[in-house]
Amino acid sequence: MTSSTALLTDRYELTMLAASLRDGTASRPSVFELFSRRLSGGRRFGVVAGTGRLLSLVRDFRFGDDELRFLRDNDVVDAASLRYLEDYRFTGSIRGYREGELYFPGSPILTVEGSFADAVVLETLALSVLNHDSAVATAASRMSIAAGERPLAEMGSRRAAERSAVAAARAAYIAGFRSTSNLEAGRTWGIPTMGTAAHSWTLLHDSEEEAFRSQIESLGTDTTLLVDTYDISTGVETAIRVAGTGLGGVRIDSGDLPTVAAAVREQLDALGATETRITVTSDLDEYAIAALAASPVDAYGVGTSVVTGSGYPTASMVYKLVARQDATGSWIGVAKASADKASHGGRKAAFRRLEDGVATAEEVLVADGFEKLDGPASSVGGRPLQVTFIDNGEIDSVHEGAAGTASAREHHLRVREELPVRALALSKSDPAIPTVYIDVE
Amino acid sequence: MTSSTALLTDRYELTMLAASLRDGTASRPSVFELFSRRLSGGRRFGVVAGTGRLLSLVRDFRFGDDELRFLRDNDVVDAASLRYLEDYRFTGSIRGYREGELYFPGSPILTVEGSFADAVVLETLALSVLNHDSAVATAASRMSIAAGERPLAEMGSRRAAERSAVAAARAAYIAGFRSTSNLEAGRTWGIPTMGTAAHSWTLLHDSEEEAFRSQIESLGTDTTLLVDTYDISTGVETAIRVAGTGLGGVRIDSGDLPTVAAAVREQLDALGATETRITVTSDLDEYAIAALAASPVDAYGVGTSVVTGSGYPTASMVYKLVARQDATGSWIGVAKASADKASHGGRKAAFRRLEDGVATAEEVLVADGFEKLDGPASSVGGRPLQVTFIDNGEIDSVHEGAAGTASAREHHLRVREELPVRALALSKSDPAIPTVYIDVE
Repeated sequence: MTSSTALLTDRYELTMLAASLRDGTASRPSVFELFSRRLSGGRRFGVVAGTGRLLSLVRDFRFGDDELRFLRDNDVVDAASLRYLEDYRFTGSIRGYREGELYFPGSPILTVEGSFADAVVLETLALSVLNHDSAVATAASRMSIAAGERPLAEMGSRRAAERSAVAAARAAYIAGFRSTSNLEAGRTWGIPTMGTAAHSWTLLHDSEEEAFRSQIESLGTDTTLLVDTYDISTGVETAIRVAGTGLGGVRIDSGDLPTVAAAVREQLDALGATETRITVTSDLDEYAIAALAASPVDAYGVGTSVVTGSGYPTASMVYKLVARQDATGSWIGVAKASADKASHGGRKAAFRRLEDGVATAEEVLVADGFEKLDGPASSVGGRPLQVTFIDNGEIDSVHEGAAGTASAREHHLRVREELPVRALALSKSDPAIPTVYIDVE
Repeated sequence: MTSSTALLTDRYELTMLAASLRDGTASRPSVFELFSRRLSGGRRFGVVAGTGRLLSLVRDFRFGDDELRFLRDNDVVDAASLRYLEDYRFTGSIRGYREGELYFPGSPILTVEGSFADAVVLETLALSVLNHDSAVATAASRMSIAAGERPLAEMGSRRAAERSAVAAARAAYIAGFRSTSNLEAGRTWGIPTMGTAAHSWTLLHDSEEEAFRSQIESLGTDTTLLVDTYDISTGVETAIRVAGTGLGGVRIDSGDLPTVAAAVREQLDALGATETRITVTSDLDEYAIAALAASPVDAYGVGTSVVTGSGYPTASMVYKLVARQDATGSWIGVAKASADKASHGGRKAAFRRLEDGVATAEEVLVADGFEKLDGPASSVGGRPLQVTFIDNGEIDSVHEGAAGTASAREHHLRVREELPVRALALSKSDPAIPTVYIDVE
């Protein structure tokens, strides 16, 4: 697989580039904004994720010989465009919400500034990353809230395409999960990995007892034994007989979990294994996790639902031109007028208004047609939400890699504390706080 | 990004490998089966996709220095396992359904044979690829049926993670889509690419007319103009005034499409642009496409719904040990017993039973405890569904690359003709044909 990310792009970005080079508009200074008009699924807040990944992918957004040859051989763009792309690297600036930050309808999650040509070509890549990762993070945060202090492990790799699985593990971690089953996510992003054995392990052996004995010899008594390959009650009895009462944990992957968890806890306690933990992993989502709050469960493993955004596998973020210069160098705020897809033109500055530490509004200052694009900097006192990720082509690497991922997780857990209590309910509703636009001109 | 796919793997595959090397079961000849217990979402058939991608990924499933270092530094496995993985390459065999083939509950989509150690480590990767790609292909095939002869373009890259987007474009193409917006899918898999301009193109210019004029100068009169940035009726009038009645097409991305399409067709005809095509692209899924059957629409562009499997972003395929040798070399069919997740042990051979060319049943011959694993070869006359993808480690490259992708598309369109008429309805129902298990011992 090539490391260039340049062709992870819709063809029309490059046909627009070509036409703009031809008519001279390619060099018009432009401002694109990445935002969402709504929160999918009646969610009460969204969680921004993917920004750290995006920065690294923008670094690799270069057109090498292979990419240029494909574009030439398929007549995607003309010769002048090929020459432009040969030297392309993003030299504009990107500001936006920190990874892990909450967002609401209209939040200016990313603001991309540069020439039209420089900025338009990043549309597809930016949306791919942010829409996917934020959808997973938003679902994961709800699960993390529902789980309370109990640890959550992400184990949905098999229900996501192989590279998305790594991104999903990372997004879930940022939103409060404790670990992942995915080894590549461990290597690339420094996320703790977990996992012991599947049902095939038990089936490989001539008896459940032999399988348990072998696993303990290999992984130690503190391991977690999967006890539901055959009969759960027999499985638990065998597990404690083989491992002793010091067994680390048992995992249950089937059945009606509240019923089964209660029975297993009772059985473990009766056998003297009072410290043996119970992990449940069968088709959990935020609702099932919440329903297990009163059950004697020690840890959750979540698969399908977290990597697929629990019913909403993509966020509805869009990437729109909101301001540009005209031929005379004057700034103009622009917006699509179609009734069902209207957007707010102009450059934005965003603040979270707080009262006694509790969020009360998303405050978006709009500079429509702002003459100097230094941006509206002052607020009525909210917490500023935007930071600079790329300054005139220079990527701030603090947001990248394992360190950036850990920092995004800390940020998320911190700002989530600002949410009003009503934001924590799982039922469908309106956004927890309103978005307030303030014209600063 | 590394080209090794070895860490796209759940940790427990490797902890099982380590424990099996320790207790000697690693070398037990084993048969794993990849199948689905049900069709997601009340679909009447499923479409297998991903196999061609998987074969290439299995080729790259090798543990290099970086992968081994990560496993060692994080104590994932012991030293003996690291030595085993250092030389690992899959030397077993994989048979299964051709890519593009239909599947039903219990269809043995892939059968992976090898030592336990060789075969278990492919579980996560195989499921990641097949579950994602098949979910997209299944949704895409329904859209393709709903669209009839009208062409479908996939343009959902921005609503899927950046690498999944490429896989999704490929799966949609296999299932009947005509083209994609994704350039990497064009390069990697030879899929025709399409795209002209976004709303930002119009907003970049001082007037819609200037934007249209420039686009036509760059892309020719046969291009498609996006006419809904401001007022659609004005947009259409401007488009024909600028391009003439020979304009290739107009695209509508908002509004109530049946109403708008009818009005635009009437306007185009009145202006004399009777050959100008209408493409619609706003939030389409299979139901919206079907609802437009009587509208004067010439082509569809589908985004979010196809790349996210139209409500079912992952198939429910699992990878289970179904047979293995015991210590004496005898074959034993095995299956998990838990009531809600039971599976059929034994090696399978699958045939589609046909009457007058119409599918009537999925016939699965089961050799439970088969002594020689040559497999049950004879049927009552159905069409054999399995082919050999990897024979003792040798990958049949005919299934890979652009050629394999084109061939999978042809296969899909051919076998889809075998479906009974009731399979073509979009409403939720049971599988179109029953799965019949026949014990051949």
